[in-house]
Amino acid sequence: MVSKQDKAYYEQLWADLGVDVPLHDQLIRGLAVLERRLHRKQKNRPEKMDYFNKVLNDLHGHRIAEMVEHKKQGGKVVGSYCVFIPEDMVLAADGIHVGLCAGSSFPVQEAEKVLPRNTCPLIKSSFGYKYIKACPYTEASDLIVGETTCDGKTKMFEILEDYHPTYVIEVPQRKNSRNQDVFTAELLDFKLQLENLTGNKITAENLKNATSKVENKFKALQRLFKLRQADPAPISGLDVLTITQIGFQDDVKRFTQQVNALCDELEERVRDGVGVAPKGAPRILISGSPMSLPNWRLHSMLEKAGAVVVCEESCVGTRLFSYTSEPQSDSLEDQIAAIGQRHMSINCACFTPNQGRIDDVLRMAEEYQVDGVIHYTLQFCHTFNNEGTKMEQALDTAGIPLLRVEADYSDDDSGQLKTRVEAFLELLEDKKTNVE
Amino acid sequence: MVSKQDKAYYEQLWADLGVDVPLHDQLIRGLAVLERRLHRKQKNRPEKMDYFNKVLNDLHGHRIAEMVEHKKQGGKVVGSYCVFIPEDMVLAADGIHVGLCAGSSFPVQEAEKVLPRNTCPLIKSSFGYKYIKACPYTEASDLIVGETTCDGKTKMFEILEDYHPTYVIEVPQRKNSRNQDVFTAELLDFKLQLENLTGNKITAENLKNATSKVENKFKALQRLFKLRQADPAPISGLDVLTITQIGFQDDVKRFTQQVNALCDELEERVRDGVGVAPKGAPRILISGSPMSLPNWRLHSMLEKAGAVVVCEESCVGTRLFSYTSEPQSDSLEDQIAAIGQRHMSINCACFTPNQGRIDDVLRMAEEYQVDGVIHYTLQFCHTFNNEGTKMEQALDTAGIPLLRVEADYSDDDSGQLKTRVEAFLELLEDKKTNVE
Ligand code: SF4
Ligand code: SF4
Repeated sequence: MVSKQDKAYYEQLWADLGVDVPLHDQLIRGLAVLERRLHRKQKNRPEKMDYFNKVLNDLHGHRIAEMVEHKKQGGKVVGSYCVFIPEDMVLAADGIHVGLCAGSSFPVQEAEKVLPRNTCPLIKSSFGYKYIKACPYTEASDLIVGETTCDGKTKMFEILEDYHPTYVIEVPQRKNSRNQDVFTAELLDFKLQLENLTGNKITAENLKNATSKVENKFKALQRLFKLRQADPAPISGLDVLTITQIGFQDDVKRFTQQVNALCDELEERVRDGVGVAPKGAPRILISGSPMSLPNWRLHSMLEKAGAVVVCEESCVGTRLFSYTSEPQSDSLEDQIAAIGQRHMSINCACFTPNQGRIDDVLRMAEEYQVDGVIHYTLQFCHTFNNEGTKMEQALDTAGIPLLRVEADYSDDDSGQLKTRVEAFLELLEDKKTNVE
Repeated sequence: MVSKQDKAYYEQLWADLGVDVPLHDQLIRGLAVLERRLHRKQKNRPEKMDYFNKVLNDLHGHRIAEMVEHKKQGGKVVGSYCVFIPEDMVLAADGIHVGLCAGSSFPVQEAEKVLPRNTCPLIKSSFGYKYIKACPYTEASDLIVGETTCDGKTKMFEILEDYHPTYVIEVPQRKNSRNQDVFTAELLDFKLQLENLTGNKITAENLKNATSKVENKFKALQRLFKLRQADPAPISGLDVLTITQIGFQDDVKRFTQQVNALCDELEERVRDGVGVAPKGAPRILISGSPMSLPNWRLHSMLEKAGAVVVCEESCVGTRLFSYTSEPQSDSLEDQIAAIGQRHMSINCACFTPNQGRIDDVLRMAEEYQVDGVIHYTLQFCHTFNNEGTKMEQALDTAGIPLLRVEADYSDDDSGQLKTRVEAFLELLEDKKTNVE
């Protein structure tokens, strides 16, 4: 917990960034309540969660102070909302990259004064934070980098640019070589943009270093996810989701070390057969729209009901870290092309067609010994919602039970969702009993 | 009206195409009721509307017979839902191009069995027609050509391809030279696709002829729209909207002749000061999502309330016909590049940013002596709905009243819509009185 002195210090920091401090106070108090109710109520958590718990309890404190210090030294902060923005390019220009908050209903009502109500809550939340100036990460960002991954976001960025310096990277809609070239060209433009912003050149050398840092983070997360394949699962889905979320804001190197330290502990657990839920508890894979911090509701609901979430096929999950870049040479152009390729490998619903995502889910269902899949769509998200149709068919054919959920950030539908989730878990239990 | 013998003949025709004839019967009976209630109730209509009325009353008759005859001769029919599909390329390959029906609530409920309910009604309607096999144009189409103009459509086409031969053209998201090249390359792929489908080569010569036919249609529609700039307006908005809708299905040459014949009559009207509403009636420009046949509700509501719709800034309106191609040479490649340029000039909400659309509306508001603008969004259409925000700001600055409408195809909200429309018209009247 933050001490009284710290609080005054941080409040000044936030105010200097332009944050609406009283509003922000409401926001973090709400977060603290949530954390106490969800995270702390869990049993048998790994000790090495300690670091992540501390970060969570100091979400806008120490890290914001680091950013402010960086800015004082002339460094820049670049915010984004999407895995298609290459963090390594920002780091290479000696910038700090931060994935901006977009998972809370807190600013949604205000955002609806500008954006259509029929917009996915993630978009309303991200725009809303800027609109009400409640997020220190947003206010600390010298530039927000958007992308054209979905219509709602694309159009939101047109509006956002009236409120904050904004730059948009075009993500093409198909994965052919033509579009691969388009995306690489977009990244070359982005390089110039970053160099202008920071005054630093991106070179073959500093980019190589930065990529290796970022991909080490990816590898740590891969390691963490692989450990969840064990039964019993050594860590809860809620904790892993929270870690992945923190990874969007934390210092890359420190975060990577901490994830690896946690993995060391989890390896022991797996060896000793220690889990967060009994062996044989229903194992769930969640696939779909990203769950941004603090969008913890579904995980928590499932795990309170006795299941364990063992994998997220999501941008806050496997889509973030499953790919690495393999440049053909050490040249800067080749490195950037390889980064382009890395991101164009992501099986995001923004691409058409996107059979790869279905194949991924089928494969992961095996690897993670999954009993059932939840297809999670944020309300009004056309891309993921439509993909649910073919996903349902494919899983049906494979004999894997699927529950389709379309959810908002509000708690209005929690009762109904809980009933559906519990019915789904019962179905999974019945299926297990029949097989045995 | 179709005679009894004709009816039996057509029913056979429809059945042979695979249409669900009893369902289709319900559909056309509903259309006939609508036409009697809306179109025929209008006063002082131009005589040359006769042709279009006949077409409307025989919507799936004579034209379908022409298509079937064309198919018997080995010709192909190509259906599409969007102004980004170049009709002239289809004609050059000796195909018939048809803009498919997507404006009725008739198939929506069935479509929702497959597509997310939170999808724009145009998309649900178009998919629904195929799903229930109620549209002879869809069933007559040897190929449906989709595009990636919005997420909802893009994802719908992935599903549609399980029900009908489907081909998708990628429409890029930004108007830069990189994307101009991408779109031209897409059209070159489309050329091959058409040649494979039809067995006919597209040559510099037949494409030139086809383009000239299609652009003559565009010019006739430009002429028609220009005549609406007169006060009193010589023709109702409902009639022009219906004509534009018919233009998506009718034979290009015949349609062009008929539009020009109507324009001759309207020129006389303008000369003589004859109108469909008294001089000084509130003049409305509607801008936004396309109104596909028979989406006549808003026009009819406005004109029954004493206003006159003088322009549609829409894909079923100015975005369809405002651009022509100017190839740099007679070569086939240059012609196709010019067609690409023609379509990339369209100020559709699928592009980011899309300031051109706002500029168009501001310009047309002057040209058409508009008293107020209605920004029309189909429900769940992210692209147009979001653009409403900046449109509102721009019109506010220009002192032009704007009403934002988000509407479904169902009649559920008609009462509420009517109240809002009438209040808007009163506001316009008050403004006029105050100015005078
Ligand atoms: S959840 Fe869907 S609509 Fe929302 S930002 Fe992501 S892709 Fe766009
Ligand atoms: S109205 Fe909007 S959502 Fe519907 S098809 Fe057109 S662009 Fe897409």
